[in-house]
Amino acid sequence: MRTLAKEVSQHIGKEITVQGWVHRIRELGGISFVLLRDRSGLIQLVFQGSPDIGHEYVISASGKVEASDKAEGGAEIHVSSIEVLAKAEQDLPIPVNQDPSQLSIEAILDNRLISLRNPKIRSIFQMQSGLVKYFADYLRSKDFTEIKTSKLISSGTEGGTGLFEVNYFDNKVYLAQSPQFYKQAMVASGLERVFEIGMAYRAEKHDTPRHLNEYVSMDVEMGFIESEHELMDLEEGILSYIFEETAKNHADILNLWGATVPDPDKVSKIPRIPYDEAKKIASDRAGKKLFELNPEAERVLCDWAAEEAGIEAVFVHSFPRRARPFYTYPDGRSTKSFDLLFRGLEITTGGRRINDYNMLKEVLPHFGLTEEGLGGYMDIFKYGCPPHGGFAIGLERLTQKILGLANVKEASLFPRDRKRVTP
Amino acid sequence: MRTLAKEVSQHIGKEITVQGWVHRIRELGGISFVLLRDRSGLIQLVFQGSPDIGHEYVISASGKVEASDKAEGGAEIHVSSIEVLAKAEQDLPIPVNQDPSQLSIEAILDNRLISLRNPKIRSIFQMQSGLVKYFADYLRSKDFTEIKTSKLISSGTEGGTGLFEVNYFDNKVYLAQSPQFYKQAMVASGLERVFEIGMAYRAEKHDTPRHLNEYVSMDVEMGFIESEHELMDLEEGILSYIFEETAKNHADILNLWGATVPDPDKVSKIPRIPYDEAKKIASDRAGKKLFELNPEAERVLCDWAAEEAGIEAVFVHSFPRRARPFYTYPDGRSTKSFDLLFRGLEITTGGRRINDYNMLKEVLPHFGLTEEGLGGYMDIFKYGCPPHGGFAIGLERLTQKILGLANVKEASLFPRDRKRVTP
Repeated sequence: MRTLAKEVSQHIGKEITVQGWVHRIRELGGISFVLLRDRSGLIQLVFQGSPDIGHEYVISASGKVEASDKAEGGAEIHVSSIEVLAKAEQDLPIPVNQDPSQLSIEAILDNRLISLRNPKIRSIFQMQSGLVKYFADYLRSKDFTEIKTSKLISSGTEGGTGLFEVNYFDNKVYLAQSPQFYKQAMVASGLERVFEIGMAYRAEKHDTPRHLNEYVSMDVEMGFIESEHELMDLEEGILSYIFEETAKNHADILNLWGATVPDPDKVSKIPRIPYDEAKKIASDRAGKKLFELNPEAERVLCDWAAEEAGIEAVFVHSFPRRARPFYTYPDGRSTKSFDLLFRGLEITTGGRRINDYNMLKEVLPHFGLTEEGLGGYMDIFKYGCPPHGGFAIGLERLTQKILGLANVKEASLFPRDRKRVTP
Repeated sequence: MRTLAKEVSQHIGKEITVQGWVHRIRELGGISFVLLRDRSGLIQLVFQGSPDIGHEYVISASGKVEASDKAEGGAEIHVSSIEVLAKAEQDLPIPVNQDPSQLSIEAILDNRLISLRNPKIRSIFQMQSGLVKYFADYLRSKDFTEIKTSKLISSGTEGGTGLFEVNYFDNKVYLAQSPQFYKQAMVASGLERVFEIGMAYRAEKHDTPRHLNEYVSMDVEMGFIESEHELMDLEEGILSYIFEETAKNHADILNLWGATVPDPDKVSKIPRIPYDEAKKIASDRAGKKLFELNPEAERVLCDWAAEEAGIEAVFVHSFPRRARPFYTYPDGRSTKSFDLLFRGLEITTGGRRINDYNMLKEVLPHFGLTEEGLGGYMDIFKYGCPPHGGFAIGLERLTQKILGLANVKEASLFPRDRKRVTP
């Protein structure tokens, strides 16, 4: 029976077996102190003499547990027998057992298979696994159905730019930028409330700390709404639940990163301001006229919200029509749409969609689109589609902003950018 | 406040509002009986005269709830006011309100946006949403971490055949056939136990009732195992939990399809037989010599298991080396690998993997592979990788076999095959 590192202190005085990676080796007066790393944490092993092991060897060690004030977790194991399960070459390209803040983002990503061994880097993805669960659990509790839709599409709903082309037998297809088409179709099909957690692809050339060419989109679509504010209410519910569960279940990881989540009770206080007003507030705070909500505006608006409402988040709604895709529900020259900015970064785009077939048909030419060019998209609306809307939360951006990571790529296990396609 | 169809009978004598699609209209002596469909089910509306609506109109109807023995759910609504939320054209390509067994698979898939409105067809995906959850919940309860890995890879771990090519900026990359590389990497990175629910791609030309070119792979990988039988034990645990929850939460859907799940207590009785013995049993039952485990063999083996063990499932293990990928842990001329056959269909392939760098290096030339050709794959094993293994369950195949669907494409919302890339 294997015991996990974090459980060792419950077995003081007993013989146990632990398994994991050799994290650090220190010799002192004929005794070797070895830190062993497993998925749960670190535990100190004490050997008489020098065991024949190196860093990152995978071992199974048995021995007696002794209380120790100096060892992590308050206990250490005095090893009586050891088995090497796998050897490791000793030319590690980057160190595993040091504070990763010394490493450049390039070093971390170029050596991804090794950098993920660092407990602090690994912890990003232990928390992220939780975020996926909390998102899904909350929506299921509100009667949403989880869907899995194709990522291979014959045409883009956003007009065909920014798509990666796939050679599909004798056809050309594209990687979906979002499940927009499909989530709307599933509302209209009668599921009414759906969510999807899946990959989305953007063939955008810019390489910034906020962009990924492949990311996990947490998508929501909801039928029978009367206003886009119901969508913002729903997102508040999701985020409040996510923050609450994160604080409860991942306090150690937040601690490791010196991070905190917003007070879940403050989420319902997130200001909702129209686009024009947002521009004005941002311009005032930036001390110069901002003509659009650029990254600088996103930052100062979140600062403003922190002062105004005690939470670094703000819903900007009523975007102008030219700034939104054709399917967005119009409201004069404005639209029933919104973004959520969180800690200086847009983490959500959403809004009500046009659900009336004729209204949508009239809109198309203004965007240079045709019914035929949209594949089967228009069929969704031909046969009775309720008022609906939705939004998407970028999983990596949410992870980044919760932990305070400098670059969104740090929140993707195997990020893809213009140049990076390995590992 | 909207009331769902399934809740109407709790409001007898009260005024309520329901919203949904007009499923069926019947007129009788100046009274119209309208079946309204929403995500929860059907409810009968009673109108004086003929309301100005057609099939699939989306409406909001208010009125008084009356008990009714004849109406579904024991109640009906005597409508006093109605609002049309969306009109529907009346040239439906296929009927929504009839038993879908009359429709061909082509009609169902060519008109996917409409066929999904059929409550029986829709129910497939309401249950499937549950399967995803039960799979994830069970693994989380065993300390597995959910991962999301890139589907864009620079080379295939299976040797490069059967891959879809993607034009990625100035590069060629491929759609991943499985997260094999990444789930092994995450075991080695120290997460030890991981699962992923994501798309997998196979550029295989055959068009059969058991194949999809894009499918949802529910992948598992687990470190620190001593034998591949631990993986089979784990899969039994997963399936037993899935069957139990499905019987509990989706009894209505199983009923609709005339389906049952296996007794969860029988799952631990699934026979485990070596490949050679499986071939012999299959040949005996088929009355002819079978040289491989073809679809016919899969069927008769499951019949055999039903008689032997009371469950239509069997683990076949110890596949010959030539039948398994290079990374499979060898065992003489055989391997530490297995398939799970369920109701006549392979729903899982799995096994222990080679975790020793040198052992893996020796194997490559026998498969016509080189270390360089595998991208960074070999790096996983260079720096200490514990004994491990894993498997994957095809979500659509599991769905198909639980409900007894004739074609796996019926269990995919928007299936992709050689010719089908829309909707």
